[in-house]
Amino acid sequence: MVEPHNGPVFDEAFRAQLLDLFRWRRDVRRFRAEPVPAGLLDRLLDAASLAPSVGLSEPWRVVTVEDPARRAAVRASFERCNAQALATQALASQAAAYARLKLAGLDEAPCQFAVFAEPGPEQGRGLGRATMPETTAYSAVMAVHTLWLAARALGLGLGWVSILDPAAVAMALDVPPGWSLVGYFCLGYPQSEGAMPELERLGWEHRRPAIVIRR
Amino acid sequence: MVEPHNGPVFDEAFRAQLLDLFRWRRDVRRFRAEPVPAGLLDRLLDAASLAPSVGLSEPWRVVTVEDPARRAAVRASFERCNAQALATQALASQAAAYARLKLAGLDEAPCQFAVFAEPGPEQGRGLGRATMPETTAYSAVMAVHTLWLAARALGLGLGWVSILDPAAVAMALDVPPGWSLVGYFCLGYPQSEGAMPELERLGWEHRRPAIVIRR
Repeated sequence: MVEPHNGPVFDEAFRAQLLDLFRWRRDVRRFRAEPVPAGLLDRLLDAASLAPSVGLSEPWRVVTVEDPARRAAVRASFERCNAQALATQALASQAAAYARLKLAGLDEAPCQFAVFAEPGPEQGRGLGRATMPETTAYSAVMAVHTLWLAARALGLGLGWVSILDPAAVAMALDVPPGWSLVGYFCLGYPQSEGAMPELERLGWEHRRPAIVIRR
Repeated sequence: MVEPHNGPVFDEAFRAQLLDLFRWRRDVRRFRAEPVPAGLLDRLLDAASLAPSVGLSEPWRVVTVEDPARRAAVRASFERCNAQALATQALASQAAAYARLKLAGLDEAPCQFAVFAEPGPEQGRGLGRATMPETTAYSAVMAVHTLWLAARALGLGLGWVSILDPAAVAMALDVPPGWSLVGYFCLGYPQSEGAMPELERLGWEHRRPAIVIRR
């Protein structure tokens, strides 16, 4: 069972840079106007395809969105859902803070795409998902995260938009029946870089130590 | 809105190593006996805490598992679920292939932990998850994936076990009510390294081009 050769050795310098990559990722909502170079999204999707997947089912499904009418339909869903979220803030002070946040870059991001999961893929022959069918969506999430890191290493920023009605997005993008929305993504060059999440910088929330139980 | 300083610049050499990391990750089910050095899991959990999370809610909950009785209870759930999966293989040839796979390293992995998601965290004040509540679990998945990459960069292998009854695992680990199992994980030094997934090497499934639709 020994492989014919060993893999690459990652040294301390690489690990330090990898941690920097994790620290300086960011969920980006403010983009510069310049376009994403042609072919770059394909490169990022190639990287994303190296993500783990349950039973090697590779259940991620990508829809790139260029058509202005489809983009407008997605943006309209965001605006409806965001207005609803604003209306349900418990406190007036919290509503004011919520209203000040910029929660998507849909108006300006040069590159936009949606990621769906195929809930019942033939590929993988069902392995590993009988008791936890959510692992197909989880696989797609790891593909997104892989793409996110590869993008940041190229100086690009990704923004994950979840304030959406999944059914409205599926209809706007006319996807095959059954595909389940994982997220809608904005990609482009960020207006600024930072090691602090924007929600922390703007006082909405701050990072806390992880909750770990020992058993 | 410009940050006081720009982030690190990642060069082509780093990006090549990052791609290597994605290529040589692996879902590991065969571990060497040597223990994971003390404190190393804490370092990995620190890295995992840099993962994106919906509304900065950081909803990941980690349960490290040392107690032999609890480990045995998790292993028993795996064995029940795996036997059930074997029994439901459609074809005899597929059942034989399934039976030849090693689908967990629960018997040998020196370090084991579960990751749960807190479905309704106070942290984050609900932002971003009203219409897509599954984003809390997705956040925990990205924390796992971050840990996975950081572990591989240290020469460690991670194995994701999903062939489990989530309720049985929650009971075995006596976690707070409501926590939702994301996965159970085996961590240790791998017996071998490879750029090819074990399921591909053993002929169960193979990688295919990503499905991308343009709209």
